[in-house]
Amino acid sequence: MTTIRRVLSYPALLRPTSDTLLLAVDFLGTLVFAIEGGVAAARGNLDLLGALVLAFVTALGGGIIRDVLIGAIPPNSIRDWRYGAIAFFGAIVAFFMHSLVLEIPASFLTMLDAAGLALFAVAGAEKALNYKIHPFLAILMGGITGVGGGTVRDVLLAQVPTVLRADVYATAALAGAAVVVIGLRLKLPRTPVAICGISVCFLLRMVSVWRHWNLPRLAGH
Amino acid sequence: MTTIRRVLSYPALLRPTSDTLLLAVDFLGTLVFAIEGGVAAARGNLDLLGALVLAFVTALGGGIIRDVLIGAIPPNSIRDWRYGAIAFFGAIVAFFMHSLVLEIPASFLTMLDAAGLALFAVAGAEKALNYKIHPFLAILMGGITGVGGGTVRDVLLAQVPTVLRADVYATAALAGAAVVVIGLRLKLPRTPVAICGISVCFLLRMVSVWRHWNLPRLAGH
Amino acid sequence: MTTIRRVLSYPALLRPTSDTLLLAVDFLGTLVFAIEGGVAAARGNLDLLGALVLAFVTALGGGIIRDVLIGAIPPNSIRDWRYGAIAFFGAIVAFFMHSLVLEIPASFLTMLDAAGLALFAVAGAEKALNYKIHPFLAILMGGITGVGGGTVRDVLLAQVPTVLRADVYATAALAGAAVVVIGLRLKLPRTPVAICGISVCFLLRMVSVWRHWNLPRLAGH
Repeated sequence: MTTIRRVLSYPALLRPTSDTLLLAVDFLGTLVFAIEGGVAAARGNLDLLGALVLAFVTALGGGIIRDVLIGAIPPNSIRDWRYGAIAFFGAIVAFFMHSLVLEIPASFLTMLDAAGLALFAVAGAEKALNYKIHPFLAILMGGITGVGGGTVRDVLLAQVPTVLRADVYATAALAGAAVVVIGLRLKLPRTPVAICGISVCFLLRMVSVWRHWNLPRLAGH
Repeated sequence: MTTIRRVLSYPALLRPTSDTLLLAVDFLGTLVFAIEGGVAAARGNLDLLGALVLAFVTALGGGIIRDVLIGAIPPNSIRDWRYGAIAFFGAIVAFFMHSLVLEIPASFLTMLDAAGLALFAVAGAEKALNYKIHPFLAILMGGITGVGGGTVRDVLLAQVPTVLRADVYATAALAGAAVVVIGLRLKLPRTPVAICGISVCFLLRMVSVWRHWNLPRLAGH
Repeated sequence: MTTIRRVLSYPALLRPTSDTLLLAVDFLGTLVFAIEGGVAAARGNLDLLGALVLAFVTALGGGIIRDVLIGAIPPNSIRDWRYGAIAFFGAIVAFFMHSLVLEIPASFLTMLDAAGLALFAVAGAEKALNYKIHPFLAILMGGITGVGGGTVRDVLLAQVPTVLRADVYATAALAGAAVVVIGLRLKLPRTPVAICGISVCFLLRMVSVWRHWNLPRLAGH
């Protein structure tokens, strides 16, 4: 019963503005990540089913890992068929319109990806708090929601995941999640807190791409 | 309580014919996949423990992922020791009788594997429906049950999983699962529906191996 | 309610001696494995976030997999922030004091690692029994607790996990877990049983390193 209530109240993250808005943004994040997965499949010379698998994993893997860890089982994307349908739609678009997708400017794709990352991180942290996870771990759950899908995709492609290698990707997700967790713990109103968190993650990610920021590394390597 | 009831009613997939039959076929699928895992370990020059791990993962990984996702926790193979025992038995047989196993004609092994795939896909879809998963996602769960174990095995061996590369393997599993889900939603009787699903998956897989069918790929790659 | 009770009673493994002792040893195991993860990140030329991720995964991955499989959700390390904090502390120490950590004699690190393995295996098997898992599978759960984190770390680094390749690592974990499970099933007192299990795993591991023991492999490979 409480589980059901929690789930129903969850999309209320931005309710004062609009539930439909949040759902739309959430679906948009899923679509963007799914297209990325489908493009990765086309580039790796995988078949259509590989594209569907990679899109599903990239778009929904992070949320599934978070839901299993916080005890929200079955995960959202196994409970609601629309997430999977959107992921598959994105995969098919990316796969068959591969040449078209490649014409989209890279900077626009990076921006869309950063937007998806920001939304997933913020929504993940908020959901973890709803499930009474400790704030410190709720921030981690936000980060996992944002980067988990891409990590599983990279593992399936037998590559060291991006999150372990390069830049400020996961750090941006954690920063956005931290803003939300701190804001909600200070009992600030939800909508501005969520918008702040999304903005922090999005801007941090975009600036780091633009400025080629990296985290400290050991000298001499 | 309801969980217990669900679990008890689950092996009833083919009850009109025989419970013992289903359990035997389920165990046979586990054994076949375990032998495959053990053979993979012997080929990769792993030690005996590696063979046990790979056999367990190959035979039971798909069902464990499905059970975690649909909320059937602890998963079947953690609840019932016989699954693990069969997996280990298969590993030991494959490991110590490696030269003997290699003498079995490849076509017979492919047939056994297709049979295991078909059964796991059908049983997985049926179990997901029992847990009130949406039909679209129940088909996916059937596919995951069939191919999940082999995928985790390939990830552990640091290889791109077969499911992402080649042929109609996962597609056959999804087709068999779809037959079951559609049949049960149309309230058709269980036994013929299950037999139909198993046959569709099995035949699709065998014919695709025989005819070297592949899914569409992007031209120019 | 029962879940809460189980969790509260869990750290009582060695209660007759001291709860604080067990918790300290558990945290020590987490710290040792986290340092290993951080060192692996520094060696792989990963950035600081990569070190945090690898440390978290190495130190807590095994326990998380076990908890999900036995139904202890959310897992311990998502429920109690101190595990994550210790893992991150270990990562930061290993990362920034890399040259210092490398001066610690390898034999001392191996000993610490064997101690962590022994404790995790014993604690994992005991927890699985508390959750009414079949003894045979409880031994497996002990093994997974000990080696699961390192396995996920190796997968993320796109390497074949150590557990599949070399020596008596996982076997020692399973042996220690088996001692605990058999001892508790025979209703022997907890503290000596736990100490026995830890000793068996620790000694088996140390002797196998010292003597270069390996499990049987197929001749001619």
